[in-house]
Amino acid sequence: MGVGDDAAVLRPTLGRDVVVTCDTLIEGRHFDLRYMSAVDVGYRAMVVNVSDVAAMGGEPVWAVVALELRDAIDEAFVETMYDGVLEASRAYGFAVVGGNVVGGVTRLGIAVTMGGEVDAGKAWRRAGAKVGDGVYVTGVLGGAALGLRALRVGSDGGEADSAATWIARYRRPTARLVEARALARAGCVTACIDVSDGLAQDLGHLADASGVGLVVQARDIPLAPGYDKGAERFFDDPWTAALSSGDDYELAFTSRAVPPVGTRIGDVVAGSGVSMIDRYAAPIRLPHRAGFDHGSDPR
Amino acid sequence: MGVGDDAAVLRPTLGRDVVVTCDTLIEGRHFDLRYMSAVDVGYRAMVVNVSDVAAMGGEPVWAVVALELRDAIDEAFVETMYDGVLEASRAYGFAVVGGNVVGGVTRLGIAVTMGGEVDAGKAWRRAGAKVGDGVYVTGVLGGAALGLRALRVGSDGGEADSAATWIARYRRPTARLVEARALARAGCVTACIDVSDGLAQDLGHLADASGVGLVVQARDIPLAPGYDKGAERFFDDPWTAALSSGDDYELAFTSRAVPPVGTRIGDVVAGSGVSMIDRYAAPIRLPHRAGFDHGSDPR
Repeated sequence: MGVGDDAAVLRPTLGRDVVVTCDTLIEGRHFDLRYMSAVDVGYRAMVVNVSDVAAMGGEPVWAVVALELRDAIDEAFVETMYDGVLEASRAYGFAVVGGNVVGGVTRLGIAVTMGGEVDAGKAWRRAGAKVGDGVYVTGVLGGAALGLRALRVGSDGGEADSAATWIARYRRPTARLVEARALARAGCVTACIDVSDGLAQDLGHLADASGVGLVVQARDIPLAPGYDKGAERFFDDPWTAALSSGDDYELAFTSRAVPPVGTRIGDVVAGSGVSMIDRYAAPIRLPHRAGFDHGSDPR
Repeated sequence: MGVGDDAAVLRPTLGRDVVVTCDTLIEGRHFDLRYMSAVDVGYRAMVVNVSDVAAMGGEPVWAVVALELRDAIDEAFVETMYDGVLEASRAYGFAVVGGNVVGGVTRLGIAVTMGGEVDAGKAWRRAGAKVGDGVYVTGVLGGAALGLRALRVGSDGGEADSAATWIARYRRPTARLVEARALARAGCVTACIDVSDGLAQDLGHLADASGVGLVVQARDIPLAPGYDKGAERFFDDPWTAALSSGDDYELAFTSRAVPPVGTRIGDVVAGSGVSMIDRYAAPIRLPHRAGFDHGSDPR
């Protein structure tokens, strides 16, 4: 049913569980209109939620969108942002079934709740990784962090072609729904999380929930094109962009068999926590408080 | 399942539809911490959503709570607010299955999405009222508006006992879930809406959606105890508090038979819009832009 009643009505599919997630984007914290357009903000707000649904092995079905508007936001801006919402709904196959709008805030906010479906009892959790499983990640990491940095410093880091890719990656992340679908069909995933706080931190959540240790070979982490030069130009150390950025929205997962998609980056072992090993078999130490930097406030 | 994974997993009941609604409370717009406590805010944020689910004839099942915190809000405040959330979850029988917290805003916000269930195909809509049906409302109206005014002006309007009732009504609204359940069992409701923007405006939505006219006898509208004196003291006209306040969260509905709960206030007729008739059969004219005043900003 359409928007307009007090609530939307949906009919669940027999034999499927419902997964529900919510994520809010706040201006100045999760996005900056200097670096992305209104349509990008709308698109992104949906992608971060699709990514959570994909990380459960689910298919997105519906979303409700709660907008919080500040005074300077006009109707044209809202309509453009909503174009991004609808573009994402077409791209990922869910319906926007409701929402509301409030004014009077000082920072633009977009709070999305998304529902999806997964075969009953088949949702992936963070818990479930077993000693002997492989550790995998989809796609490539580090591109979005380099893109945000390139936007902030107003330089392509001497990597013009790559920088365009990084920036596109930052502005228009892809939720790994196609990959999640292939993995769900294969039935090999034992635990999964989406990389929204940085690979190191999010694998830490997975290790904690599963009660295992993870050993990750940093040299095996798939990196964005031109990563090495960009990281050298923009960051003090070679790993921050790849390990501490959440803006790539890849999936990290463990698998009991060789999966149809994803790159193997390590092993599940007895123990706890995440050990990142460099090419000389030495542990990598990340800067303090790595992760969480989706924001636009430079530090 | 508990909070902690990327999404919550829920199993729908066979033969039931899912209703989904969302409502956001923003400090300074929908509440003011001078007039209600943290625990009241948490409770209220859930009640406004339960009210929407009840207005569809549904039972609330789950909620996700997205908090937006400003700097001065400490952990103790959040925990107290959450006590109110959990109190409501016990009172109305739903589970809080997830949520998230973001910082960096300047006005406290609490965005709730709630899911409920209703027998398949039985959800009430705003559309559905038929000529000849009666128009009904649950409970009493005007109390919450008088309570908010009493708090603002720091006076009980000379109605000490009633004022305490009004203020309690404002601070702790009741969603009419018990009434909705009785009405759903009776099967007599043809259209329903919760009174969240004021009776006049919300009945207007129902009339529009149903393609009918509504004639309401103002003398039949059930009013809060001590209403007449309070309205005389606090408002320029006798009707604003009863017809233009949404803070009562009553249900307005049309019924094809005498319902088990609710007070009959009028009739569904051919035509359009809502006609409010006073005791002398003259139409009542409400002040311009009646409705929408949940807020704390005095006008």
